[in-house]
Amino acid sequence: MAIKRSLWLKLSTIQLIILFYLVAVAVSTVLLWLPIVHQPGVELHWIDALFTAASAISVTGLTVVSIPETFNTFGIVLLIVMMQVGGVGLMMLSTFIWLLVGKKIGFRERQLIMTDQNRLALSGLVKLTRDIFFLILAIEAVGALILGVYFLRYFPTWPEALLQAVFASVSATTNAGFDITGQSLIPFAGDYFVQVIHIILIILGAIGFPVLIEVKEFLFARDRGRYRFSLFTKLTTVTFFALVFFGTVAIYALEWSHFFAGKPWHRSLFYALFQSVSSRSGGLATMDMNEFSEPTLLLLSAMMFIGASPSSVGGGIRTTTLAVILLTVWHYAKGRSAVKVFGREIHEEDILKSFVVFIGALFLCFAAVLALSVSESSLPVVMLLFEVCSAFGTTGLSLGITSELSPFGKMVLVVVMFIGRVGIISFLWLIRGRAVKDSYHYPKERVIIG
Amino acid sequence: MAIKRSLWLKLSTIQLIILFYLVAVAVSTVLLWLPIVHQPGVELHWIDALFTAASAISVTGLTVVSIPETFNTFGIVLLIVMMQVGGVGLMMLSTFIWLLVGKKIGFRERQLIMTDQNRLALSGLVKLTRDIFFLILAIEAVGALILGVYFLRYFPTWPEALLQAVFASVSATTNAGFDITGQSLIPFAGDYFVQVIHIILIILGAIGFPVLIEVKEFLFARDRGRYRFSLFTKLTTVTFFALVFFGTVAIYALEWSHFFAGKPWHRSLFYALFQSVSSRSGGLATMDMNEFSEPTLLLLSAMMFIGASPSSVGGGIRTTTLAVILLTVWHYAKGRSAVKVFGREIHEEDILKSFVVFIGALFLCFAAVLALSVSESSLPVVMLLFEVCSAFGTTGLSLGITSELSPFGKMVLVVVMFIGRVGIISFLWLIRGRAVKDSYHYPKERVIIG
Ligand SMILES: [K+]
Ligand SMILES: [K+]
Repeated sequence: MAIKRSLWLKLSTIQLIILFYLVAVAVSTVLLWLPIVHQPGVELHWIDALFTAASAISVTGLTVVSIPETFNTFGIVLLIVMMQVGGVGLMMLSTFIWLLVGKKIGFRERQLIMTDQNRLALSGLVKLTRDIFFLILAIEAVGALILGVYFLRYFPTWPEALLQAVFASVSATTNAGFDITGQSLIPFAGDYFVQVIHIILIILGAIGFPVLIEVKEFLFARDRGRYRFSLFTKLTTVTFFALVFFGTVAIYALEWSHFFAGKPWHRSLFYALFQSVSSRSGGLATMDMNEFSEPTLLLLSAMMFIGASPSSVGGGIRTTTLAVILLTVWHYAKGRSAVKVFGREIHEEDILKSFVVFIGALFLCFAAVLALSVSESSLPVVMLLFEVCSAFGTTGLSLGITSELSPFGKMVLVVVMFIGRVGIISFLWLIRGRAVKDSYHYPKERVIIG
Repeated sequence: MAIKRSLWLKLSTIQLIILFYLVAVAVSTVLLWLPIVHQPGVELHWIDALFTAASAISVTGLTVVSIPETFNTFGIVLLIVMMQVGGVGLMMLSTFIWLLVGKKIGFRERQLIMTDQNRLALSGLVKLTRDIFFLILAIEAVGALILGVYFLRYFPTWPEALLQAVFASVSATTNAGFDITGQSLIPFAGDYFVQVIHIILIILGAIGFPVLIEVKEFLFARDRGRYRFSLFTKLTTVTFFALVFFGTVAIYALEWSHFFAGKPWHRSLFYALFQSVSSRSGGLATMDMNEFSEPTLLLLSAMMFIGASPSSVGGGIRTTTLAVILLTVWHYAKGRSAVKVFGREIHEEDILKSFVVFIGALFLCFAAVLALSVSESSLPVVMLLFEVCSAFGTTGLSLGITSELSPFGKMVLVVVMFIGRVGIISFLWLIRGRAVKDSYHYPKERVIIG
């Protein structure tokens, strides 16, 4: 018992999250590999089972096989569970672990998570985690119900409509982006109601749990006029919707004389809006990505690289990272000493962290594109960039090349999905080891930069 | 006089550097446009004259026309002057202006330049600038002399050999990378002596003036054992040569089974070494860049984006920027609070500056590639990326697409060369306006990052 406990404490918080991730992927790989979950006659290579498992647990949604042609109903139910475990579980677990090994993480970081979630007491964290879980389940249930009833006009029997609806709702809310239609949401390209429901579910998953909790608190507050949203909530929400807006306008403009040429404006608008929302992390699509011109693919790659909000079901560098970086560069250019926003100042440590996350993510994605350009020399670089950004943002939008990749190429994407989901900071902490105390200092000396 | 003086003082340091740059480009454009400098029968479009002028003043070396087929001997002599003005002049001028409007830049920045150049007194700056100018002239003269004598085996008459040698020496030392052979150094692909001379000249230009000055001081010091090189010199020199080494090994490995297949090892090694050195900022080439495979083009793009040392004739984000960023990410991952190197600590402001430069450069290059992918839709993204990075690093290596670009595409590259040469920091200061004093503060609040 004593040995167990010391072993437990020796594993750092981050290492436990990563352990959870790896175990979940390993178990999922074995489950998805079992012939019992496959359609008759299907044989799945273990690399494809691993890829699908990693894609489900990291809620990326990139696929090397067609889901409905490969898995039977049992397999599809398993996938629903995996998306749930991956999307909600990883976040919940990190909150739980913060509680369990609280002593290991130091007062400042514990204070941090409390600040983030609007200064809840440490003892309220269990309740908070439970809240998150039931909130997500409630969102998924409502989504499945609405879609289930509506889907009766598309599918002949109610069990079929309901399975489609439950899968679609979980896939959208967890931002997994898998589909069992065989062609994502392309069949619903003209059905704006289905798209709006999906957009709402995707945003609820990707906007970040702290935002959901604060909005819930706000709605139940006695005196709403005096409720103060945290800086985090303001920053991430404004950035999130600014990105959606900017993405919609940019896609519309770039495709105006290409794919959108000759289409009614509302159809083009919904194409642009849905793909913009989906590039945050959702990964569902109402059109074939190959229809987009290269500038749009570059833009979408950047949007997927940014990804969703922190503490959400999404990946990427996250919205707050981008916001802090842009604010810092702007304030630097204007010659101001502090980064001010919404009547608050950004902490220097968060500025440093943002830059480290950005640089780390950039080096990772560049290395991945470089590696793929060696192993998949027949594919153009822009397609490889799109695929890598899609994996890093755990978005799952694809030009359809995933299944053509070499085993090495698939493994590269598995690694990128993993780091994209657990986050660059967590990954960097893997190589941290025991923190070194700086007991000595050197004199500072300036150097010429840039 | 009073009005003149106040007008003079109103222009900030940076604005004067940029003004010099713009005037130099404008004058050069007109001069290169005059029929008197052209070969018989040549008609030069004004956009191509502007592009060549901007390329010469920013010592980039990208060309939209063949230099020997377009310009006569008078035009070539003009180009030599322009490379000199652009390469050495811009740096000298910035030092001069620091002297002239010293009061405008504040004590800290004046102290900074003194620190950089090994703590010389402010009054020594004129002498320093003169030193720099004569040092570069001396390097170019020695280079031209050696190459001139040697070139007699390639060119029939001594005036021809000498013109080639002077042009080559100035083009290499200022890292301009223009050629009047019509095919860069490809005719010398088997002549390792010519290549070694060029490598030395390129490095002397790109290693940074402060390094040259300190090395000169070291060589003339009474007690060499006690001479201390500045942190700047150590950091930039180590990074510079590490990049050259890493580049050589990477190019060798990536092309081993492609372009280098079947070639003798020393030939392959010199191909890899020369192109690695040249990607720092030189821009001369001993082979056709189109021979390289896509992974190598991606790698070279990154190398050109990094560029040369600060206070040199090169561009890019500069070596110290990369070094500070990598050191900071590494120290952050290891959980250390200060960034220590060579028995010194990096100043927080230099860390912030490095990240701002990197992010600014990245956004610029991404925007440029995106713009070109719209205007030059027939060219693959990897070629556009290579061209943009070549312009930003003022390197001038090219896949030969420069002359095919649309007028809009050429203007995009002119802007990128300009910002690459004057540096991101200078450019950001353009939009700074009058510095705002932070007389108030807000409370700090933490946010979740990454
Ligand atoms: K996804
Ligand atoms: K150059």
